[in-house]
Amino acid sequence: MTRTAVIGAGPCGLAQLHAFEQARQGGVDIGEVVCFEKQSDWGGLWNYTWRTGLDAHGDPVHGSMYRYLWSNGPKECLEFADYSFDEHFGGPIPSFPPREVLYDYIVGRAKKSNVRQFIQFDTAVREISYEADTFSVTVESWENGPGVLRTETFDHVIVATGHFSMPYVPEYPGFESFPGRILHSHDFRDAVEFAGKNLLILGSSYSAEDIALQSLKYGAASITIAYRNAPMGFGWPEGITEVPALRHLEGRTAHFADGTRRDVDAIILCTGYQHHFPFIDPDLRLVTANNLYPAGLYKGVVSTANPKLLYLGMQDQYYTFNMFDAQAFVARDVVLGRLPLPTAEAMADDVDAWLTMYAAVDTVMEQIDFQTAYVRDLMALTDYPAFDLDMVRRHFVTWEHDKDESITGYRDKSFASPCTGTVGPIPSSTWWEELDDSLARFLAR
Amino acid sequence: MTRTAVIGAGPCGLAQLHAFEQARQGGVDIGEVVCFEKQSDWGGLWNYTWRTGLDAHGDPVHGSMYRYLWSNGPKECLEFADYSFDEHFGGPIPSFPPREVLYDYIVGRAKKSNVRQFIQFDTAVREISYEADTFSVTVESWENGPGVLRTETFDHVIVATGHFSMPYVPEYPGFESFPGRILHSHDFRDAVEFAGKNLLILGSSYSAEDIALQSLKYGAASITIAYRNAPMGFGWPEGITEVPALRHLEGRTAHFADGTRRDVDAIILCTGYQHHFPFIDPDLRLVTANNLYPAGLYKGVVSTANPKLLYLGMQDQYYTFNMFDAQAFVARDVVLGRLPLPTAEAMADDVDAWLTMYAAVDTVMEQIDFQTAYVRDLMALTDYPAFDLDMVRRHFVTWEHDKDESITGYRDKSFASPCTGTVGPIPSSTWWEELDDSLARFLAR
Repeated sequence: MTRTAVIGAGPCGLAQLHAFEQARQGGVDIGEVVCFEKQSDWGGLWNYTWRTGLDAHGDPVHGSMYRYLWSNGPKECLEFADYSFDEHFGGPIPSFPPREVLYDYIVGRAKKSNVRQFIQFDTAVREISYEADTFSVTVESWENGPGVLRTETFDHVIVATGHFSMPYVPEYPGFESFPGRILHSHDFRDAVEFAGKNLLILGSSYSAEDIALQSLKYGAASITIAYRNAPMGFGWPEGITEVPALRHLEGRTAHFADGTRRDVDAIILCTGYQHHFPFIDPDLRLVTANNLYPAGLYKGVVSTANPKLLYLGMQDQYYTFNMFDAQAFVARDVVLGRLPLPTAEAMADDVDAWLTMYAAVDTVMEQIDFQTAYVRDLMALTDYPAFDLDMVRRHFVTWEHDKDESITGYRDKSFASPCTGTVGPIPSSTWWEELDDSLARFLAR
Repeated sequence: MTRTAVIGAGPCGLAQLHAFEQARQGGVDIGEVVCFEKQSDWGGLWNYTWRTGLDAHGDPVHGSMYRYLWSNGPKECLEFADYSFDEHFGGPIPSFPPREVLYDYIVGRAKKSNVRQFIQFDTAVREISYEADTFSVTVESWENGPGVLRTETFDHVIVATGHFSMPYVPEYPGFESFPGRILHSHDFRDAVEFAGKNLLILGSSYSAEDIALQSLKYGAASITIAYRNAPMGFGWPEGITEVPALRHLEGRTAHFADGTRRDVDAIILCTGYQHHFPFIDPDLRLVTANNLYPAGLYKGVVSTANPKLLYLGMQDQYYTFNMFDAQAFVARDVVLGRLPLPTAEAMADDVDAWLTMYAAVDTVMEQIDFQTAYVRDLMALTDYPAFDLDMVRRHFVTWEHDKDESITGYRDKSFASPCTGTVGPIPSSTWWEELDDSLARFLAR
């Protein structure tokens, strides 16, 4: 019997288990599938924790989720093709839900497809090595006490551990003596902690944008965002300013590349994450920066170094849950032999062709088109249910324009579902006014 | 040639290297001694870092050191018997120095005894196992890139990794929805971050005491300390109150065991640390709570499970640097065969005798006497230079009384050196007034 290990029970891991279970319910022999999850419950990043730093077992806290996180893209762009928002919530809901709502939705499908049976919780993977056609996967289960390891063998390993857990944390001159808090967005939990403070945010991507906005929303006195290359350039509300790169700090005074300076109370490093697989033999590890087509992954999934090792969701992301689904269906079919792999050379050529295309990608719109083409390529390979990919692409384009028009207002827009056609209602309160991010409040808005 | 691994280059590891180097300079063949240190520099906890959570390599940050930490015991009680404060600073200094001063002192001796030669920095120990009379020590050096492991063999391993790195982080009902910061003292860096805040501190030991006081000193609005068993009961300054155990939180309202409640802005868990050796084979790991005589260590140093494995500084501590020195001299002499070990049975009997004595220890004064007797026992075994242990014992007793008399004033007292007889001068500013904890300021006071 073939044995498959899935590492992680977040959105990618759950998508993978769902894909296997769909096949099993269709009468396919899926062999044995075992999912190892370090946390006590499923949902990955979406499983919010107040903890930072180390978890109760001395392991790095996986989550980077913070309070009051709302989807920063239309939910219609991430809808599961086989489990619509309408099905889960029993009717239309607005297009930009907060964390608890998306968590409920992810977990809703996982419950429906009964995938909890596959998961060993409280179990951290410590080592994955490969010899004689077999993976040895060494795990530590908290229930057995610290340091007690167990090794199992598998025919395939699917890595679904995400890449928003290991912060990239640069140091600037003066950090050692800055009289205030310095933290990475990985450890950011609650904007309320910064009410009344003058914040310095380093970065120019999603985390910087979102943490700046919500810190202001929950009462920060001022927010200065320092960028290295180019400003995000949104029409920021009063209280948020973008400045060129931080050079150094003197006491609480931040000095920037344009010679300006500001006194700040706290510094949040929105400097991104690193792909980090300390539990995999270095020869097998995916080595990549955060981009739309990591080298070394055929169809963005199959390790060309060892095609029995697969990775989910390692791309930079416009598409998320539905892309993970398509990847998971492809991974499943590769594992089950239903999708035969071409020769190593043909796989390398295919990767190269995508990398060549990717090298020509420049603008945000081209990035959206590129990832749309990638998802379309995946969809053609397997039986993941069709959805209106062109509509999703149009949504992304509209969404980018909406953000340019109003960075505080874009979450009040409404989009049509590419799966059901349902149009999300316009909420009765705006995102900018709404301080309550609970599921109950969201559904009542 | 005999090979000895020392894990960690903090106060204990440096004491060990110093002990070996003293022997070597005396003409003894010490074989090869290799110290592995995860951080980029020496000093262990005393090597302050602004980082929290994960370090630049994704490893847990070792340090729990915070700004404005001043020694909470007289420096005379921790003085190196072979490197006096007078020698290092060229004259008398007050009895309660801040971190930078103690760091300078520790490092000063390490420089003088030229122990940097033994240390491999930026090198984390990943695994220690034992087979056929030999230890295999697997390390990861950052310079070789992530995941590249190297295994060396050793005849002895001395573990000097400390036990103030792995926080014990309990959870209380309501933490999930508390609208403010929750952190363990391990992640506490700067009291200034809490100026103007109403703080809840959980705990009743040194961290709770010290973080409460300095948070108030640097401007916290109020501090509530919740204890589980008994209050510390000091004469707290206005603004600090002790209350019975936390039961739960409702929003920002903390509810205590006596039915009282308080609204708080942040929660600091001063709930202690766990001995944590994830890098040692479970069979060889020391398993102990924080106490004055961990079971399983002959003379508090030699693992009875495997006498070629030694641990330094694993005791709860009144004595520190000088006790580490005495342990390091004993460990060195065991490793070099100059201090022959008795039979396993005799070692177990000795441990049992100490544990029996320890079981009768009740009061703080009895604890001081117990650890004094332990250090005296170590001193008799080896050639660590004598110092006036009875004087140190008396200092601890006086110090405890001083704390009871004035928890904000005890650091302004003066003590005589058990090594040189020098009496520390009374500083010109009180600890409570003095906000500048730099070495420069301290020496100018």
